[in-house]
Amino acid sequence: MGRPKGNHEDRRGDVAEAVWQVLATDGFNGLTIRAIARQMQATTGVVTHYFGSKREIVGYALDLLESRSRTRQPRTAADGLPALRSAVMDMLPLDAESTTANRVWISSWDHALADPQFQRDHARRYADGVERLTALVQAAQKCAALCAGDARLMATELHSFALGLIVQAVLDPANYSAVQQVSLLEDYLARLRPTHLSR
Amino acid sequence: MGRPKGNHEDRRGDVAEAVWQVLATDGFNGLTIRAIARQMQATTGVVTHYFGSKREIVGYALDLLESRSRTRQPRTAADGLPALRSAVMDMLPLDAESTTANRVWISSWDHALADPQFQRDHARRYADGVERLTALVQAAQKCAALCAGDARLMATELHSFALGLIVQAVLDPANYSAVQQVSLLEDYLARLRPTHLSR
Repeated sequence: MGRPKGNHEDRRGDVAEAVWQVLATDGFNGLTIRAIARQMQATTGVVTHYFGSKREIVGYALDLLESRSRTRQPRTAADGLPALRSAVMDMLPLDAESTTANRVWISSWDHALADPQFQRDHARRYADGVERLTALVQAAQKCAALCAGDARLMATELHSFALGLIVQAVLDPANYSAVQQVSLLEDYLARLRPTHLSR
Repeated sequence: MGRPKGNHEDRRGDVAEAVWQVLATDGFNGLTIRAIARQMQATTGVVTHYFGSKREIVGYALDLLESRSRTRQPRTAADGLPALRSAVMDMLPLDAESTTANRVWISSWDHALADPQFQRDHARRYADGVERLTALVQAAQKCAALCAGDARLMATELHSFALGLIVQAVLDPANYSAVQQVSLLEDYLARLRPTHLSR
């Protein structure tokens, strides 16, 4: 090991950082004890001190992903349509940090689909996301910034749109710059506004 | 091996079927020489006769996925809005076969993101998808079934919506039945119609 042992909490922080770096570069498929050890410049023994199995590593990585997403500062606290727009922008890969986080989310689906518990956790996370958007759609409808209609349906469609845009933008960054993503979102939201007149 | 050796083409078909079954159950992460051999009731030697490396297996699986998608019978050949609706329905996991195919697609993203060549192939596939939808949007606009507007923008948003809906439906089938997916699509398309009046 290249550096002195810190206390247990420091070391856990090092493990978290190493797991994150491996995920960002090689995805869940590349997340092995060996890769984590290499990233930490430590022996595999140090890593196995923390993780008993590949499944434990994956579970830890998913928790890490969720806690990182939760602690990110949301864009704005405004009401109405700006709040809804901001909530979706917070999901999109508009900068390096959120691109990394989204890349890791996408890569987690392979593992989640092969493990019922992980899959349930993911389903719950996305249901929470739809819930949050539903409340924002309702608030925007109240101040007449969005047209009336089934708020949950509108929120579910918007959530699907955001999720799919994330996938396309992460897989094809050349054709989905931040500017292009935001303009797609603006166009999408424009169609939900009462001022939108179909031509 | 449990059965007599067929000719080379038969055997390649067996390999393809085994790769597909492993992908459907365990995703790309579970796609190992050992798993393929087990599925074929063959020795790992038979499998390594076809594949030199994990990357070769993954490449083969991605090609298999693409050729399976291409050979699926599209829903209808109608024009206008029905053609657009059918094209999106052909993407969605509305039955067991398309659920399996979509599950495999989603699971492929982890590998695609860790390999520039695979990622480029994926980006090209999704760009082709947007292209196809753009032509259908334009055709529907011509017969006034869809309101005017930038067809590519509308198609890109619809493609994102479909992709995100696929992810949600595959991860959370209990909350995204075929009926629910189709009703989300109908609601989405209704907003693109010239008869849609914002309330």
